[in-house]
Amino acid sequence: MKQSLFFAKPSHHPPKEEISRSAQLLEQAWYVDKLFAGVYTYLPLGFRVLKKIENIIRQEMNSVGGQELFMPALHPIENYQKTKRDIVDILFHLDLATGKKFVLGFSHEEIIVPLAQRYISSYKDLPLYVYQIQTKFRNELRAKSGIMRSREFIMKDLYSFHATDEDFEEYYSIMQGAYSRIFKAAGVGEKTYLTFASGGTFSKFSHEFQTITDAGEDTIHLCNGCGIAVNDEIIKEQKTCPKCKSARLVAKKSIEVGNIFPLKTKFSDAFGLRFTNAQGVNKPIIMGCYGIGLGRLMGAIVETHCDKKGIIWPANVAPFDLHLLAFGDASVRKNANEAYEFFCKNGIDVLYDNRDVSAGSKMADADLIGIPLRAIISAKTKNLIELKKRSQETTQFLEPEKIITFIKSTHNEN
Amino acid sequence: MKQSLFFAKPSHHPPKEEISRSAQLLEQAWYVDKLFAGVYTYLPLGFRVLKKIENIIRQEMNSVGGQELFMPALHPIENYQKTKRDIVDILFHLDLATGKKFVLGFSHEEIIVPLAQRYISSYKDLPLYVYQIQTKFRNELRAKSGIMRSREFIMKDLYSFHATDEDFEEYYSIMQGAYSRIFKAAGVGEKTYLTFASGGTFSKFSHEFQTITDAGEDTIHLCNGCGIAVNDEIIKEQKTCPKCKSARLVAKKSIEVGNIFPLKTKFSDAFGLRFTNAQGVNKPIIMGCYGIGLGRLMGAIVETHCDKKGIIWPANVAPFDLHLLAFGDASVRKNANEAYEFFCKNGIDVLYDNRDVSAGSKMADADLIGIPLRAIISAKTKNLIELKKRSQETTQFLEPEKIITFIKSTHNEN
Repeated sequence: MKQSLFFAKPSHHPPKEEISRSAQLLEQAWYVDKLFAGVYTYLPLGFRVLKKIENIIRQEMNSVGGQELFMPALHPIENYQKTKRDIVDILFHLDLATGKKFVLGFSHEEIIVPLAQRYISSYKDLPLYVYQIQTKFRNELRAKSGIMRSREFIMKDLYSFHATDEDFEEYYSIMQGAYSRIFKAAGVGEKTYLTFASGGTFSKFSHEFQTITDAGEDTIHLCNGCGIAVNDEIIKEQKTCPKCKSARLVAKKSIEVGNIFPLKTKFSDAFGLRFTNAQGVNKPIIMGCYGIGLGRLMGAIVETHCDKKGIIWPANVAPFDLHLLAFGDASVRKNANEAYEFFCKNGIDVLYDNRDVSAGSKMADADLIGIPLRAIISAKTKNLIELKKRSQETTQFLEPEKIITFIKSTHNEN
Repeated sequence: MKQSLFFAKPSHHPPKEEISRSAQLLEQAWYVDKLFAGVYTYLPLGFRVLKKIENIIRQEMNSVGGQELFMPALHPIENYQKTKRDIVDILFHLDLATGKKFVLGFSHEEIIVPLAQRYISSYKDLPLYVYQIQTKFRNELRAKSGIMRSREFIMKDLYSFHATDEDFEEYYSIMQGAYSRIFKAAGVGEKTYLTFASGGTFSKFSHEFQTITDAGEDTIHLCNGCGIAVNDEIIKEQKTCPKCKSARLVAKKSIEVGNIFPLKTKFSDAFGLRFTNAQGVNKPIIMGCYGIGLGRLMGAIVETHCDKKGIIWPANVAPFDLHLLAFGDASVRKNANEAYEFFCKNGIDVLYDNRDVSAGSKMADADLIGIPLRAIISAKTKNLIELKKRSQETTQFLEPEKIITFIKSTHNEN
């Protein structure tokens, strides 16, 4: 993509009304555009990152047997009356032209359970795992932290249906592994903790995946004893680690990037979702749900991958493989154009800064945008290309072929 | 995918409340699930078709310079007051917890124009083409025809921004070509006509792409003189073909699968979207918009590709490459399991009917689901596989390797 044509005009200054560093950087660099507090457009740069994150999640959900579908956002209010969630304050309400009452989905238990009911009758239909990557709506009184807490957001939600508690527990632990792989692939693995959370009225514990960052709205307590984390709610109740009982806990600010949740028979009971087991006994179905907010994750990646100059994307979720910069006169431009064509032909996803702006502006924008590899062509590079990692100050001079080999080897690692 | 685990339970009977054949078949075969009139879930089968259609469209939009982004569904009412579209009757209205008024987007001119305004200042920023594949909402009093006219639907909408009428017209004609390629690739090329439509108050003509089918809600008039089509609105006004003036017109029922629309300066004027040309003169920007409803297109494909037994998907948009059916005892099952593993290993997307149901049920479901190629393994096939096209009655006995070669050659054609 030639930057002269690219729908992005990075600004020299962060937006004043944003507090979190990720919101500032993502807006300043034209990853997202804020339409209204909590309501964002993903611009071409942000859309590319979103698709990378989506594919990492999709691959892992498929690997644990998830079947992808796509449910609507318009939900009849009756479904929420059955689960007594029609009084939830973050529901958006709207009226159909026919007079019928609808809400916008903030989650999809009320839709997937009656749908699963059409499919499941016997134990032979279980277990079942279905998921979607779809837009949710929450009528928050205050939306803040940029794309990390918004009124409209894209979420992956998987629902699992089981015959027995044991089967549920086995899958729940498989899903813990899938989530760990997702956060690792997205570059936040080291800073993301499996966190014990209060499971509410129908389950003792659920789990959150919390990424440590000062921009977080949550506080978690890292256990020096066993290495897990515990959320604030539990610590208020019991002061010690629920796993190893240690009291040596260190508080850290964090952001919830995912959660996994035992639903037991709460929603099955509300809709009468039952099955007949091998002995002919009719029983309620055990459920679990498993969420990841894609924008939330994107924000957490930026919070943990930036410096004073801008973003430093992990390669797996970067909008482009390579940022090609041309500094100089017509002959340099000619070399750069040829290099660009060469990279494109070889399947490298390049953003090529061919704009008529100063070298300083190009460097500043490249630092802000944060593509992990930068290739510079100037009068001094001759037949070679100056390669610099966004995360390092050192550069090396390489042949274009070597750069392609290097990028492809990185692709293969992932 | 093993059918015993697949989230689909094809029914023996079409749903009673649906009139259009596509709605009947798509619901009966578990491509879609109707939550409420005009509000559907895309089930795993339907989701796979949706993604194929999406990728055909994405490829063509990228080939004509479109840059993909993703705009929100929640829109501030103020933006619609500026264009005087806040009174449109199909708008869904909702209140934010803060009291602010919002609507759900039925289109995105009101969002993209102020966004483009942040980018465009000079003629050097033009032309600009941006698009998205995103969910729209229409508060229809009546929703009918299944996924072909719904209250919530996925649409591709591209917006183009130009310095001059000439530049717009050139792009408009490029887009006609892209649309023709999309409908051809989706299998409805021969039945889809570029149709002259009334452009409304601010443009003499726009164009629709109309697919001829008895299930259509529109009527178009095919011109025997020049081969184009004309919609009802124009014929009511002028009785003759607007291109060649012929009066030899044949009326046909049809469904609108896409439209391309000159917006002139209607929306630019409403938001003051202007640019400075090479002579330093400040001028309004010329716009066009280009839509395709993905569910609408899926419905039209089914309407034009079905028989009494079910759907017959064009290969490009089929949910799977191959439907593998095993008829027989344990030794047949063993062969079939091995063939399934072999196809999967070779990158073939197979639905494998390994269910404990009769051969008759398997054949009936396969006819209903409509995967274009069927591979049967039975006592009589021995080391070979009986291959049948969904569209033909004849079969042939082939080695598994030959089937892979055949499918891969079809992939390469597309």
